[in-house]
Amino acid sequence: MTREVSALVFDAYGTIFDVHSVAALAESYFPGKGQALSAAWRTKQLEYTWLRSLMGRYEDFGQVTLAALDWAFESLAIAPQDAQRRALMGEYHRLAMFPEVPEVLETLAARKPLAILSNGNPDMLNAVVEHNGLRDRFRGGVLSVHAARVYKPAPAVYRLAEESLGVPRTMMAFISSNGWDAAGAQTFGFQVFWVNRAGAPVERLGARPDETIRTLAELPALIP
Amino acid sequence: MTREVSALVFDAYGTIFDVHSVAALAESYFPGKGQALSAAWRTKQLEYTWLRSLMGRYEDFGQVTLAALDWAFESLAIAPQDAQRRALMGEYHRLAMFPEVPEVLETLAARKPLAILSNGNPDMLNAVVEHNGLRDRFRGGVLSVHAARVYKPAPAVYRLAEESLGVPRTMMAFISSNGWDAAGAQTFGFQVFWVNRAGAPVERLGARPDETIRTLAELPALIP
Repeated sequence: MTREVSALVFDAYGTIFDVHSVAALAESYFPGKGQALSAAWRTKQLEYTWLRSLMGRYEDFGQVTLAALDWAFESLAIAPQDAQRRALMGEYHRLAMFPEVPEVLETLAARKPLAILSNGNPDMLNAVVEHNGLRDRFRGGVLSVHAARVYKPAPAVYRLAEESLGVPRTMMAFISSNGWDAAGAQTFGFQVFWVNRAGAPVERLGARPDETIRTLAELPALIP
Repeated sequence: MTREVSALVFDAYGTIFDVHSVAALAESYFPGKGQALSAAWRTKQLEYTWLRSLMGRYEDFGQVTLAALDWAFESLAIAPQDAQRRALMGEYHRLAMFPEVPEVLETLAARKPLAILSNGNPDMLNAVVEHNGLRDRFRGGVLSVHAARVYKPAPAVYRLAEESLGVPRTMMAFISSNGWDAAGAQTFGFQVFWVNRAGAPVERLGARPDETIRTLAELPALIP
């Protein structure tokens, strides 16, 4: 079915930008370990956002991402050079878009205000949006959890989008590839589109997405 | 060094009881997938405790554990019989102790009050403690996060132990095999002993344990 909404809010990492595009650089530095490093890094990065939020010890996503990278190095018995560590962190400023992104955003931006709502800190988000030439697509803003000093899926994060866009939550479309982010947004009251790129099982968190799609290319047909 | 403390509080799952003792039963039901099921189950179970806490949608550990099991089944394309699903859940009432536990608890209980502080709901905890014959060891109580309706590492959980035992946090020894639980307890103000059974890297969460040990057998020498 198609859904009536006033604005669209996108998650960034994993939804618009491919966080595992760092795996190729990691593989060039540490042959045979690139995939494992990329996977451990991402898993630990998310864990740290949840754990620090629960502990009441927010630190920004750049710091969390670096801490997770160092944990991942140690878990794989990798002793990186400083330049390699800096280069891998630098990748977060120039992550690749998923291939369907430019066309989908061009189509949707002609219909509704679009925004990003992300765990990323403002510097990281602005850099990756500029790098991919997407600034003009997000008239609704590039919003960071940093203003709330807590990470997704805390309700205070989703409230940032509601307040910044001035759109009631029931009229907001929220698009994320992260099943737990989809559940958090759904529980908050957004209309949720889960981009299930990996064909993962739905998360059992007491809320199911309104729509499940495989890539963003399916989205324009669902948003009139 | 030895540490002056007034009471000892133990994490349960992974610290006293081996959650992966379910892998053998799982393997008997689903040959070749027992280890993977057990690992996916435990990972998802922890994720759900953190995510539900952040969403403000607590549900008890039995429900979370069942939800995580169903996710793990689907992720491995396993279609269990109802009896298999019930039997795996039932294992949480009779998890095995780690081998050093009986002797270590006998030694320590003669010196200080001991307690458990666990994510488990009261029924699950009481059942596994009784099953292993450990009731008399825990004069300080078997405490569940259920009273706080939020999971570790939220400070409200560690406060339950402080209030229940009437011991100031600086005089409390907290023992956990989970690095993130150790970090949460340390941040709260306990003296923390991390049982690093797996030789894992220390978590980068802004707090390092006071002592790191490999099994509980090292603990009596550190507690006078």
